[in-house]
This record gives sequence, structure tokens and C-alpha cells, in this order.
Amino acid sequence: MAPIILNCMGNDHNDYIKQLVQVKNPNLDTMEEDILYHFSLGTKTHNLPEMFGDIKFACVGGSANRMKAFAQFIHKELELPGNREEIIDICEGTDRYCMYKVGPVLSISHGMGVPSISIMLHELIKLLHHAQCRDVVLLRLGTSGGIGLAPGTVVVTDKAVDYAFRAQFEQVVLGKVITRSTELDEGVANELLQCSSELQNFPTVIGNTMCTHDFYEGQGRLDGALCSFSHEEKLEYLRKAYDAGVRNIEMESTVFAAMCRVCGLKAAVVCVALLNRFDGDQITSSHDVLVEYQQRPQVLVCHFIKKRLGLIA
Amino acid sequence: MAPIILNCMGNDHNDYIKQLVQVKNPNLDTMEEDILYHFSLGTKTHNLPEMFGDIKFACVGGSANRMKAFAQFIHKELELPGNREEIIDICEGTDRYCMYKVGPVLSISHGMGVPSISIMLHELIKLLHHAQCRDVVLLRLGTSGGIGLAPGTVVVTDKAVDYAFRAQFEQVVLGKVITRSTELDEGVANELLQCSSELQNFPTVIGNTMCTHDFYEGQGRLDGALCSFSHEEKLEYLRKAYDAGVRNIEMESTVFAAMCRVCGLKAAVVCVALLNRFDGDQITSSHDVLVEYQQRPQVLVCHFIKKRLGLIA
Repeated sequence: MAPIILNCMGNDHNDYIKQLVQVKNPNLDTMEEDILYHFSLGTKTHNLPEMFGDIKFACVGGSANRMKAFAQFIHKELELPGNREEIIDICEGTDRYCMYKVGPVLSISHGMGVPSISIMLHELIKLLHHAQCRDVVLLRLGTSGGIGLAPGTVVVTDKAVDYAFRAQFEQVVLGKVITRSTELDEGVANELLQCSSELQNFPTVIGNTMCTHDFYEGQGRLDGALCSFSHEEKLEYLRKAYDAGVRNIEMESTVFAAMCRVCGLKAAVVCVALLNRFDGDQITSSHDVLVEYQQRPQVLVCHFIKKRLGLIA
Repeated sequence: MAPIILNCMGNDHNDYIKQLVQVKNPNLDTMEEDILYHFSLGTKTHNLPEMFGDIKFACVGGSANRMKAFAQFIHKELELPGNREEIIDICEGTDRYCMYKVGPVLSISHGMGVPSISIMLHELIKLLHHAQCRDVVLLRLGTSGGIGLAPGTVVVTDKAVDYAFRAQFEQVVLGKVITRSTELDEGVANELLQCSSELQNFPTVIGNTMCTHDFYEGQGRLDGALCSFSHEEKLEYLRKAYDAGVRNIEMESTVFAAMCRVCGLKAAVVCVALLNRFDGDQITSSHDVLVEYQQRPQVLVCHFIKKRLGLIA
């Protein structure tokens, strides 16, 4: 029976290894120290396994204020001890990103655009690796422009696509362009949709998310400092996007999907649409309405987390 | 003589128009209101000419803390009235960017990467246009990785180049890629170099600046979450960059140069090198050393501003 037992042990060990957060860089194991510069954290200065070893959900979003509010919301919803108003920014040594830990949930800001979230993701994935975290789900909570959706609709991303509606991300490595897939985890997306139907608070759809590298010309806005196209040409581009299954536009999803996929991390993108781009370009809703819209991805992801933790059926 | 007089008037008028900050978007003049969403400012809610009409220098940099420190430094150096500790963030209605005004100087943060600075620049150029500013110089003050330079060296950018060392920026407009020139103003760069030789505080060079879309793979770092190349391949790429005149690497210069150029704005990029990339990837200098390095572009740009204002010979 020995071979069978060995085989079982091997599988268990493989499963254990698989659950760990994988970096795709053999150099990291031989480095004496790894300074996560943009987090103001490091392997020599901080006990990362002790600080972060129990993380199961890494939630990221553009705005620092919003990710602080999310951490406080999760703190309340998980009924954790302590004063949620006194929650500490773990990255207070830098102003590049903010980071809050509430129980098994990490809430981190990433700024705007692919390069900004890319730096954060490199250091987050290394952090989760150094901390020996297992079974972590990454969730991006964001704002976006909707295409053919009522403002306030939440979009759970099916595929993150580029300006030509391709599910790929182009990464430059030493001066050469390589292409990575941007497919996200279907199971997590469906779980999130299920959560929305349980909540019945706001409309949620699954659709493709287009990721652009700017907010104005790349998204066909007529109101930037530069604009060389007509209203009709704009609408034609948005219609093409709609026909390709795109339901919202934001600025981080492709690299988020691509990096999580390469590292074997389950990931989802949940963005609220602040406006319907067929109707205009400027975000004219009142402050209060926008604040409520921005809470919707938080409410949805919170429900998902509570279900996963077995706090609700 | 009438034609001559008319001609003179025409030239004067043209000069006046030329000095104004130009947007390249005919739609803006017909809009009832322009909401600068990421600044939390607007043409109906704020009197932009009154607030910003006297701006002559728009200084931008990635870090919010650093741009606040720069505003306070300029406040002191220009001997302006009021308490510089109480300087107000004009964009306090949002956490996307910070903005401080000290006399004729605007100091704004732009986050990290091309998309983040691009949003800020669209709204800044519109702001300067709405405010009817004239003769404005834009200066980016940043940090960077040096190539073949001692840490602490300041680089004034000659040409901003992409990953293949081309002085161009690729912009997607309605799904099509267009190319824009990234040449900066030679006169301003030379003035800045002259300022450095007058200060004699730290080494300053003029060189090309490579702008990448990430901090790790795109810059040939061996210490990211993903790395598929060897130490030798990294060095080969950096050597090629050096041979192409690249002296530092950062993440915003190409779009900054391209947008300023399209809008006829004189602009310069002044970045300090925090490390020599031939020697390593991690930023290991002490906090105090890094703080002093980051002040160098501020000292240089402050000297430039004071000379332009006639406060020093």
C-alpha cells in the first residue's frame, strides 16, 4: 500500500503548496531582504507572517478614503472588537497607498490607472507570499462609466478587455511586448451575482469591462483638454464596445486580471457605473448619490465575504 | 498706413492669444458647465479666473506629501504672507489629487503612472484655460531610477522616450493608436541647468528620460512578483538604454511632454535619481537620505521660479 500512501501525501502536499500565494520570480527566495518600497514594509523590518498570515480576502480600490471606509464597514459587519474609527493605516510611512487590516480582510488603495495598480499588485502579491497566506481571493472594488446601463448598476466583470475589446493585457518586459490573458475566475463572479440576487438592493450584471489608459480620449469623452472626434464617432465606438459585450469602462482591470491569473490567484472585479456614457461624459450626480453608488460594490463584496466565512447562510 | 497698423494690431492680438493656455477641444466653449471631476472644481461652482488667473508656474509631482512640502517651501522662499503650515488643499473635496496655490505657483500631486497624470493634466490644462492664465510653464518634479548616475543626481529631461527609446507617446483615441511627439522645451531645460550650476548644491545633468508603464518588469527589475529574465539580460537592456542617451527611468514623462506640446505649453521634467540601476533594484537608502534627495528638484525649480520672477539676478 506504500505507493498509495505516498501518492496521497504527495497530493496533500501539492494541494498545500497550491493554496499558497505563488510569486513567479525565483530571485525572491535568494534575497536577504525584500523591501516593499511603496508600502513602506519589508521582510527584515516587519514580521509579515504574523502581521498578515491570516488574510483571506485582499480588497483593492482606487481611492484611499473609500478603502478606509470599506475597512470600517467590514469591521462593523464582521463585529470585530475595537473602535473602527481608530483603524490604522499600515502604510502610514508612505503616501503612495493606504492599507487597512480588519480580521481576514485587507483593504488597500491603488490609485488610478494600470501602472499605479501594477506597482501595488507586485508588492501585494509579494507580501501575501512572504506572509505565507493561503487561499486568498483578490477583489477590486471600483467606479466606472457604464455603457447602456442605468447609473448605479453594479458590474461584475466577466472578461477584462483592452481598447480593441480583446481579453488580453500587453506588458513590456525589457523592451519587448508580451501578451497575457485577462480571464477572471468564473466561479467567484457567479458567487457575487448570487450575492446580489440575495441582497436585492441594486441592479447587478455580469459583463465585459473595458480597461483604458486614460479617462478622456481613450474612453471617447468629448470634454477633455484634447478632443479630435465628433459626438457621432464617440457613439459609434461605444456602440461597438456594447456589441462586444462591454458594459463598463475603467482603468485597472486588465493588469489586475492578468497578474492574478499568472500567480494563480482567484480574482474578481466589481465596479459601480456612475453614469451611462450613451447619455453623457460628465459626472453630474450629487455628492450624496455618488457616495451611495460607491457603497454598492462594498455591500456586495461584504456579503460575499460573510458568506465565505460562514457568517450567513 | 492703415494696413500696417492693422497688421500690428493683428500681431499683438495673436501674441496675446498665443500666451493664453490653449485647449485642443472645440466642444469646451459650448459647454454650459465644465466639471473638473477629479479636482472637485467646476466652472459654475468656482470662479476659476479669480482663483487661478495669476498662475505662472504649475508644478506637478507624484506624491501628495511631497507637493505639499514643495508648496510650503515656495511659500517661505517667496516670502509670502500668512502661515505656511496652514496652507489649504484646494482639492480637499476629493482624494484623487492634492492642489496648493502659493502666489503664482500651483503645486499639484498626480499619483503614479501615465494614466494618473494624464487625468490630472486634462483637468489642469482646462483649469488654466478657464482661468485665462497666460505664459504658464509646467514643471514635473519627480523621483526616478538613475542609469549610470550616482544616487542623488538630478536629471533635467532632454527627450522623454518610451521603452524602445523613441521620443514618442502612443495615445489610444476611440480604439485607434496615434503617436505624439514628446520633445520638451530646450530653453527651459537649459535655464534649469544654469540654475543648478549657480546653486552648486548637487550634480545635475541633461539626459533622456525613459517612461515605463510599470516599476518592475518594464524597468527590468529582478525583484517583482513576476520576473522572467536574468541579471545579464537586465544589464544588457539598461546598457542599451544608456547608449540611447537615457539617464533615468520614471513613469510619467512621455504623456506629460506630449500633452504640453500639443497644447503649446512650455514644460520641463526634473527628477532626482534615487539609485543607480546598474548597482541594484531596491531602494535601500535611509529615510533621511531619500528625503534630502527628493528636495533637490524642489530647490532647483524654486531657484528657477525666483529667477523668472526677478527675485534673484
